Amino acid sequence: MYDVIIVGGSCAGLSAAMTARMRNMEVLVLYAGDGSMGKIKQMDNYPGMPNVSGEELLRIFRKQAEDLGVISKKQLVQKILPMGKSFSVLAENDLYEAKSIILALGIARVSPLTGEEELLGQGVSYCATCDGMFYRGKQMLVVAGGIEAVEEANYLSELGQVTYIIEKAHDTAALAPGIKVIKEKPLAIHSIDNMRMMLKTDQNEHEADGIFVLRPAVAMTQLLPEVIAQKGAVLADDNLMTNIPGVFAAGDILGAPWQAPKSVGDGNVAALAAASYLRTLK
Amino acid sequence: MYDVIIVGGSCAGLSAAMTARMRNMEVLVLYAGDGSMGKIKQMDNYPGMPNVSGEELLRIFRKQAEDLGVISKKQLVQKILPMGKSFSVLAENDLYEAKSIILALGIARVSPLTGEEELLGQGVSYCATCDGMFYRGKQMLVVAGGIEAVEEANYLSELGQVTYIIEKAHDTAALAPGIKVIKEKPLAIHSIDNMRMMLKTDQNEHEADGIFVLRPAVAMTQLLPEVIAQKGAVLADDNLMTNIPGVFAAGDILGAPWQAPKSVGDGNVAALAAASYLRTLK
Repeated sequence: MYDVIIVGGSCAGLSAAMTARMRNMEVLVLYAGDGSMGKIKQMDNYPGMPNVSGEELLRIFRKQAEDLGVISKKQLVQKILPMGKSFSVLAENDLYEAKSIILALGIARVSPLTGEEELLGQGVSYCATCDGMFYRGKQMLVVAGGIEAVEEANYLSELGQVTYIIEKAHDTAALAPGIKVIKEKPLAIHSIDNMRMMLKTDQNEHEADGIFVLRPAVAMTQLLPEVIAQKGAVLADDNLMTNIPGVFAAGDILGAPWQAPKSVGDGNVAALAAASYLRTLK
Repeated sequence: MYDVIIVGGSCAGLSAAMTARMRNMEVLVLYAGDGSMGKIKQMDNYPGMPNVSGEELLRIFRKQAEDLGVISKKQLVQKILPMGKSFSVLAENDLYEAKSIILALGIARVSPLTGEEELLGQGVSYCATCDGMFYRGKQMLVVAGGIEAVEEANYLSELGQVTYIIEKAHDTAALAPGIKVIKEKPLAIHSIDNMRMMLKTDQNEHEADGIFVLRPAVAMTQLLPEVIAQKGAVLADDNLMTNIPGVFAAGDILGAPWQAPKSVGDGNVAALAAASYLRTLK
């Protein structure tokens, strides 16, 4: 049982993690990747680190957090379940528990495909490692949100026949031979007679036994449907607590401005608020 | 005419300065000293600078700000005057103008002595350099808030006779010979027949021609009386704008939590809001 699980390992999440450790909390950071921060070539207004790249900044933050005793794991969080006085967090095939949650996932850019959420667990999956074995010897579609999907598609290709659907071009050179790549815009998913799945794109329809939607993030509506958001930004009070007691938010997920120093400040505030919240539990 | 004058040169002020330069604003930072930040021996939760002292952090922030083109001056700001679409800022004997203001003075720890504010400019002064010459050949009391007052007391002692009143002990070894040091708690100031001044302490009464109150900060009520505060914290909206259009606040002046990462985030937000505000002026 962690004191806090921080979902997201960029500026807001890592800042929250460091402050939480200062308050002697047991901290787990779950992150899917470097996110948009990792793509920033040069930043001049993060105080203390002139002319730093996003990648370098995150490397230094992560090292500092780990030196302070933060545990961090590169796992995509699929679901957060409020369990009364604690929370269960499902990340790929692991289940974690925490007394509080800090949402620091970055800008919620994810809009699910039509039918995707309704069919999750019934032919649609977000996790190759978790669900791949169900499709052994079968046909699978991978809806690939980015280069992160390549590795999982390769794993699935060891089990069955994989078609890799990409909307925006990304490097697919490392895809295993035998994986067919199609560049089309995915639009909707439906099931045929509750057996086979159908993916509709802007140009075609593709049939398969299972559809893996592998994005670098999960929509908030899917992750924690109880949390209230407005115009894509999670709502929080001055202490950055959301409408759910024990669930805090920090960084880009709260809306503009989307900047590293602001995210770092948010992480600091959210972690201190989480520490105060933990004291109310005792 | 600066785009923004930032009052305070610690975490919040310097972060605001850097972001304002990113938006190509002409930026002046006026600061009285390193403040409480300069006294922090070690800090572990400022992301990017593990195990840093407050002094070292500020040195690096200041260098980075100056490299970005920020002008910073070590001058105590005495008064901010709203002038319609701009602000006049009086700092020691200089007058500056700006289109917007960011208040980043730190925790408002200053409570004026009884009678102090009413008699300002009528026997009470906050600035030795500005007003010293009025007391040439006369008796002066220096109410010394800290070691910063030593230099100014020495200057005044070249002009007349100085008694140095300290409430809390600080290093007075560098005081010029001839300056009398008294350790008492100052309580109130009044004038005798509109001519001589009287300082009442917890133990005595002291008469003089002029009283210099030399604190490392000026009370918000004196600096900008129009700004609304509550329980010592300046009130601001989500964009950190105060009740006065064009005046923003960042860092400890906004109340708890008083932490470096939070202050850095505030500075970032306030500077972006100031940039938006400037666009509305055009």
